[in-house]
Amino acid sequence: MSVPRKKEEAYLTDNWLEATVEDLNVLIQNRANGFIRNILKELHPADIAEIASHLSSNERLYLFSLLDSEIASEVLIEIDQPLQSEILEQIDDTRISEVVEEMDSDDAADIVAALPDNVAEKVLSSIDTQDSAEVRELLAHEEDTAGGIMAKEFVAVNKNLTVDQAIQIIRHMAEEIDEIYNVFVVDDENMLIGVLPLQDLLLTRPGVKVHHVMNDDVIYVGVHVDQEEVANLFKKYDLISLPVVDNEKKLIGRITIDDIVDVMEEEASEDAQKIAGITELDISETSPFRVTRSRLPWLIVAFLGETISGLLMKNFQASMIQVLSIVFFIPLIMAVGGNVGNQSAIVIIRGLATGEIGLLETGRRMKNELWIALLIGLILAAGIQAISWFWLKDFYLGLAIAVSLFLVVINAAMMGTFLPFILRKLKIDPAVATSPFITTSNDILGLLIYFGIISLFLKLFH
Amino acid sequence: MSVPRKKEEAYLTDNWLEATVEDLNVLIQNRANGFIRNILKELHPADIAEIASHLSSNERLYLFSLLDSEIASEVLIEIDQPLQSEILEQIDDTRISEVVEEMDSDDAADIVAALPDNVAEKVLSSIDTQDSAEVRELLAHEEDTAGGIMAKEFVAVNKNLTVDQAIQIIRHMAEEIDEIYNVFVVDDENMLIGVLPLQDLLLTRPGVKVHHVMNDDVIYVGVHVDQEEVANLFKKYDLISLPVVDNEKKLIGRITIDDIVDVMEEEASEDAQKIAGITELDISETSPFRVTRSRLPWLIVAFLGETISGLLMKNFQASMIQVLSIVFFIPLIMAVGGNVGNQSAIVIIRGLATGEIGLLETGRRMKNELWIALLIGLILAAGIQAISWFWLKDFYLGLAIAVSLFLVVINAAMMGTFLPFILRKLKIDPAVATSPFITTSNDILGLLIYFGIISLFLKLFH
Repeated sequence: MSVPRKKEEAYLTDNWLEATVEDLNVLIQNRANGFIRNILKELHPADIAEIASHLSSNERLYLFSLLDSEIASEVLIEIDQPLQSEILEQIDDTRISEVVEEMDSDDAADIVAALPDNVAEKVLSSIDTQDSAEVRELLAHEEDTAGGIMAKEFVAVNKNLTVDQAIQIIRHMAEEIDEIYNVFVVDDENMLIGVLPLQDLLLTRPGVKVHHVMNDDVIYVGVHVDQEEVANLFKKYDLISLPVVDNEKKLIGRITIDDIVDVMEEEASEDAQKIAGITELDISETSPFRVTRSRLPWLIVAFLGETISGLLMKNFQASMIQVLSIVFFIPLIMAVGGNVGNQSAIVIIRGLATGEIGLLETGRRMKNELWIALLIGLILAAGIQAISWFWLKDFYLGLAIAVSLFLVVINAAMMGTFLPFILRKLKIDPAVATSPFITTSNDILGLLIYFGIISLFLKLFH
Repeated sequence: MSVPRKKEEAYLTDNWLEATVEDLNVLIQNRANGFIRNILKELHPADIAEIASHLSSNERLYLFSLLDSEIASEVLIEIDQPLQSEILEQIDDTRISEVVEEMDSDDAADIVAALPDNVAEKVLSSIDTQDSAEVRELLAHEEDTAGGIMAKEFVAVNKNLTVDQAIQIIRHMAEEIDEIYNVFVVDDENMLIGVLPLQDLLLTRPGVKVHHVMNDDVIYVGVHVDQEEVANLFKKYDLISLPVVDNEKKLIGRITIDDIVDVMEEEASEDAQKIAGITELDISETSPFRVTRSRLPWLIVAFLGETISGLLMKNFQASMIQVLSIVFFIPLIMAVGGNVGNQSAIVIIRGLATGEIGLLETGRRMKNELWIALLIGLILAAGIQAISWFWLKDFYLGLAIAVSLFLVVINAAMMGTFLPFILRKLKIDPAVATSPFITTSNDILGLLIYFGIISLFLKLFH
């Protein structure tokens, strides 16, 4: 049996991961619990989660059973979604309750939300009553809003307390709350009126009242605000934590930057999936049927749309019979139109997502993209004119192809720029603008422009 | 003249932004400096930056001239890249020095790096010598590495100090350093040996030695590590700050989460741009020439690639003349191949970027995507078989079209899955896998498969 490796590096590298997984395969097979516990003791819960995702289902469950409930709770939070569900399905309700009891309210709410209703009810009734009340409160909020990602663990102090009294309160709560960066200051009605960084608390002499040293320009957010907007606030104002208030500005929760980092990653992955035409699905999902179900709808959209393209092309078959060569430019027309449209759309989509572009700029951006499209269109049209003239030995046909390519470029750029703005105004995620539905519509339009102009030309000049 | 509005909301909303911009237009025209200063006083530097980006070039410069150097430095850091350069070009060297002097070392290094060499030298020689030494040190590191994003502002204490001595040190440094969340613990050789969150410092009684309460499982990073890997460490371990060490594990810098949030956003935008075939460029760039230069290269790749598609199609013109209808399926073949390839690629690209997929999983992922492609290919092939049979009234031709579509799907999915892994192994950003170069190659291959099979069929059965 191999000797368990000791942690020597600053964090889990690929080599170390591979070696540890190999060790654990052997150790778990031999039920060498002592050795396994020695390895686990050296590891960060996030590393245990990563290692566990490289084990077989049975090994993973066995490993999980060896963890004490505090570490188990952190591993369960860190592990990828489908594996989390798999573990929750396999372990019994008592163990789930033990593990959930160790979690912060926001994580506990996420786990409970993932359980079947009857198990969720059992878990909620078996944990501490205050904890379960908090989790129930959080579950009432919509998942993608400030309320859906906030936690109930925060430190609030009354404005009339002194700095040393505030430190006493923190001391009291520090066992329950892991990361305290800011203390929120409230008035007698629990309304948020200020914030005090821990650093300032540490440096102020005892006896000074909290409201004399607090920062009253506190940035806060309403409970119903969308999580993407919340993330943009963190980015813009370089926040570490953000207080959440209800409609009466009463303090009801706190969002921390680590949750925002997850939100940003989630939103970026969602955007990327929308761009590729995949219905939202976890990257680590492995069932081919579930994956197919999430990808097929957009493919069918493209499939049907391009079948329509084909049917429309049939109307131009007289032109094709007259000059077959015109079909050789179909790939070029489609690809250039598609790429130009995507370039314009992705810039706007990213700009809207990061807040670098606002809705006020629609007109300015359209004008700008039009200039760019004119430039690009002219250059590519000149190129295709030269190539087609050389190839087809027909100046006017080449000109017709060039003109249609130019118009296809302008059309694609304008659609690509305009659609994300329109979608945002309609409260639809702008990332949809590059999905197969739009690119297929672009293809149809592009081919109609192309064949329309060529046919017209052939009627007039041949 | 309109009366300046007071800040009433928790943060700058679109309506408020628009109203403030309107006010400032009037006030700047009238040089009403008192009113303008009153408005600015109420605003967060990040908001001033956003408002400034909606002003004209002259108004922006005028507004900037009214800011004291501390606020000016924060506004300059927060404002979008092209506007930052514009401001730096317009203001004189003394003002630049004043503003740079107020900045943290990492921000100062970014600004100095953006200056022309002679101005940079002037600025560096006019600011505090310790500051300029720090900036020079930071400028020596590569931009996209831990060294390139770290700052020299951090608190390090010797392990033998007591907790109250450590607090004294923090008190001393608090003026210079805005955000202290963690104190790093070093030994007599300045080697990093632990970390102590401010919260723990606050709660430990005086007299206890730092190394008794510190966490010695400190996660740190080498100065040459790529910034994307650094960002993944922050995400995985839920970090707020991360110490940076040199080759001898000596502490030389600190990276904070707000810089990582910027890195994540930058990487997501870069990935999105690579996916769309845009050479890296700031979203707020407005010069049509610069934008065209960044987009045109990939379009020319697509242009030339699809011209090759056209040339290759010429070889199959006998088949097209025999049955013209086969050209009506070109859009379908191209679009389905492109979309299937993109779907597979984007899942792998995102997974590799977020760390959810590791290089160890290449084989597993390929097998998985093959199953998915088989399913999707069968469904779409059955669809096209039905449609083409009905349309062309030719069962065997329909079968040939279906078989070729099936092969196009399998080919696109395998290329889409395999390429991101290969690119990552070659240390090229996997996001390139969906760029026009690859999609164009896919188009060429798809069309060759399609026309190859159809021609073979026509030779055999017609």
